[in-house]
Amino acid sequence: MSPSKTSSVTAADPSRSRRFPARHLRTFSDDRELTQNIVQETIANPGSVKINVEGAFIVDDEPESPKSVDRDGIHYERKDIRLPHHTGVVSHVAVDIGGSLCKLVYFSREHATCDNGGRLNFLNFETERIDLCIEFIKHLKENHEARSPADKLCVMATGGGAFKYYEMLKDALGVDVIREDEMECLIIGLDFFITEIPNEVFTYSETTSMEFAEARPDVYPYMLVNIGSGVSMVKVCGPRQFQRVGGTSLGGGTFWGIMSLLTGARTFDDMLAMADKGDNTGVDMLVGDIYGTDYGKIGLKSSTIASTFGKVFKMKRAAEQSAEDGEGLSHSDNDSVDDPSSFHHEDMSRSLLFAISNNIGQIAYLQSEKHKIKHIYFGGSFIRGHRQTMNTLSYAIRFWSNGEKQAYFLRHEGYLGSVGAFLKRQPENWGRRSSFEEAAAVRFANYRDELRRSSSREGEPIS
Amino acid sequence: MSPSKTSSVTAADPSRSRRFPARHLRTFSDDRELTQNIVQETIANPGSVKINVEGAFIVDDEPESPKSVDRDGIHYERKDIRLPHHTGVVSHVAVDIGGSLCKLVYFSREHATCDNGGRLNFLNFETERIDLCIEFIKHLKENHEARSPADKLCVMATGGGAFKYYEMLKDALGVDVIREDEMECLIIGLDFFITEIPNEVFTYSETTSMEFAEARPDVYPYMLVNIGSGVSMVKVCGPRQFQRVGGTSLGGGTFWGIMSLLTGARTFDDMLAMADKGDNTGVDMLVGDIYGTDYGKIGLKSSTIASTFGKVFKMKRAAEQSAEDGEGLSHSDNDSVDDPSSFHHEDMSRSLLFAISNNIGQIAYLQSEKHKIKHIYFGGSFIRGHRQTMNTLSYAIRFWSNGEKQAYFLRHEGYLGSVGAFLKRQPENWGRRSSFEEAAAVRFANYRDELRRSSSREGEPIS
Repeated sequence: MSPSKTSSVTAADPSRSRRFPARHLRTFSDDRELTQNIVQETIANPGSVKINVEGAFIVDDEPESPKSVDRDGIHYERKDIRLPHHTGVVSHVAVDIGGSLCKLVYFSREHATCDNGGRLNFLNFETERIDLCIEFIKHLKENHEARSPADKLCVMATGGGAFKYYEMLKDALGVDVIREDEMECLIIGLDFFITEIPNEVFTYSETTSMEFAEARPDVYPYMLVNIGSGVSMVKVCGPRQFQRVGGTSLGGGTFWGIMSLLTGARTFDDMLAMADKGDNTGVDMLVGDIYGTDYGKIGLKSSTIASTFGKVFKMKRAAEQSAEDGEGLSHSDNDSVDDPSSFHHEDMSRSLLFAISNNIGQIAYLQSEKHKIKHIYFGGSFIRGHRQTMNTLSYAIRFWSNGEKQAYFLRHEGYLGSVGAFLKRQPENWGRRSSFEEAAAVRFANYRDELRRSSSREGEPIS
Repeated sequence: MSPSKTSSVTAADPSRSRRFPARHLRTFSDDRELTQNIVQETIANPGSVKINVEGAFIVDDEPESPKSVDRDGIHYERKDIRLPHHTGVVSHVAVDIGGSLCKLVYFSREHATCDNGGRLNFLNFETERIDLCIEFIKHLKENHEARSPADKLCVMATGGGAFKYYEMLKDALGVDVIREDEMECLIIGLDFFITEIPNEVFTYSETTSMEFAEARPDVYPYMLVNIGSGVSMVKVCGPRQFQRVGGTSLGGGTFWGIMSLLTGARTFDDMLAMADKGDNTGVDMLVGDIYGTDYGKIGLKSSTIASTFGKVFKMKRAAEQSAEDGEGLSHSDNDSVDDPSSFHHEDMSRSLLFAISNNIGQIAYLQSEKHKIKHIYFGGSFIRGHRQTMNTLSYAIRFWSNGEKQAYFLRHEGYLGSVGAFLKRQPENWGRRSSFEEAAAVRFANYRDELRRSSSREGEPIS
């Protein structure tokens, strides 16, 4: 084990104000006068400031954009969302604190001027290092208050940690912490990404790779499969009409946990990188391993995985048998590279990643069938744009549905909850060209009219 | 690692004829004259001998019954099926060779007389040690041919290994090996157990434990979930009308493989015994670990498992952090008992067993919904009457169906395929009070009559 990056960097760079790259702190520019004017306006007209999503786009290849690499326990995402026409003051940040990761979203003004709009920034921390997240927010707060003394920063928090760490957040930051329901935030966030951000939603396959999906006029119903430490499947029938219909405990935490025990890898990304280089047939039992050929009668190819990790026990036994038969391996050699029971970390990683993704794909398909839903969106930090993961999920949906359904992915898949919490701070209609409430009100009115008409025909007026 | 039982016992007991307990070889008694008469009768009247299941029962507590313990690589089951009225000669054995286990069924005559019927015997070997299985069958064959020189033993074989090891079986045994389709055998075997063997099928719950299920008049449709190294789910609509509708690669082989890597345990039963003593909350991330409380709004209790093995990564990190902070743990201490990252084998075993069983339960339920099937039978050698496994599967079906469906188990859950192959050797109607074909013919005739009547009403006669 190498010393932790976190500790060593902290030691080398003790000045808190220098710990975060400058770009990530430009939120609160020095243009204090302009900002204060806007704040005054906001106070005078509460509810008048909205997130302006006109012309919103994802920043893909900005030269100064930092690489999404761990730094000091912080994982910076690329792909900020530019909001070129948003001029209003934003005095809140949002955080989604899950079982393994803590995802932060905040708004920053562009190039220290107001007329060029701003952008949404995305970053995450391990929940285990929530202290780093708090420190980061504290820094945002200090900058914000330095510029706008009359305006207090507020933290929107969701995910289980919003409850578990509520007192800690409040005490450490000395700000209002507003807790929001996790599922509701996920859906509000997803809804925002689907309807408002171009080039956000895409489909994926091995052959065509990434293909952006056009926004559909009929958004609902859809299903969200959110893969974090565990997995939640949420049926969404309309704006803020949702129900958690299922899930599985076999999720990102399972992959992370088992792989850290089996391989000693220390980061999720290291495990994914191993999976890229692995060959799952080194540990998986294929139909061909059982049959010697395919099982054509029921359509199982020789290469179909019959049992995840199913080859391991057999090979361990064989290795032990050889050792006992005196073929040169003593028991103490068990961990040596010559021992056939030392399975490749890469193979194990690929196998488990495949199994977990495939399993989620199958359950998602079956739940979508049960609830008669065609569109399935996959979100959550487990995916993180990894090809094999997306390909497996995508293939599973196509396979089980005989090509009738497909999987949809998002470029900000890990930030649905935090973006949802961020948007919840807004007055009605923020971040929506057509608000949830408006749409719901129209629907209700139509329904009521219909009911009134049909009742009248039967001679029973409804007041 | 201790030396293999197999090798040491073989070395201590080199005489092949003494390697199998006498009880298991009484099949072919010394009552040669009587047997030969029956053989002559069989040859003279082919197809006239049927398995007589009248008064069949499961032998529960026979004093001389050997314990179901591994011996020389052989796992003897208890619970033979007594067939007190079967007097015909049986000149075949059946074997179902799966990815991990090879299951053998054979008939033996009772107490060296013919008028007391006989019994079906059940035992298994690891497929890795198929040599032991072949040796066992060779021994049965020698005994059979010694008594009935005119009659050759035949081996009915199913499962993938029936194909993979076909030549090996034929060459080593010098007998006819008849290969049968795996899914078909599973269904024939299950059908036999459901309809012909009293006290075979049962339901299970933590509170009521085992409750035998009465045979239903409406057997079909049902779903079989067969859990071996991998898992197959088969929809059965009528006698020999079946379709593999799904499955998962997360099965017995996965549990066996991952556990052997994580714990070094060498037998499946050792792993199950560990699971009995474990506490999965030592490695699983619960809703309470994320929320600090329950997530009542969507009905998730604090004790609900959010992520299988989800606590591992966090705790490993914390342990490493402590070590780096100089709290007494050096890196080389990583495997010491004081290291919090050394998770208990028992906890890991319980967690993984629960996760795999629960996952299969959920998928089975969803498949049963998709195919509109109420009755779900769980078979396969993964279950082996283990309380936690059955309880988890059972709970999953009740939970997901809101108590509308339940899981059915079988006392011979691992032998569906081999019993199916055994029965396939029979002439039509063997082992069935009312044959498959008869029932199908009656149904077809009824359907045809109905069709004729309704068509006649519309003036379109059908010939």
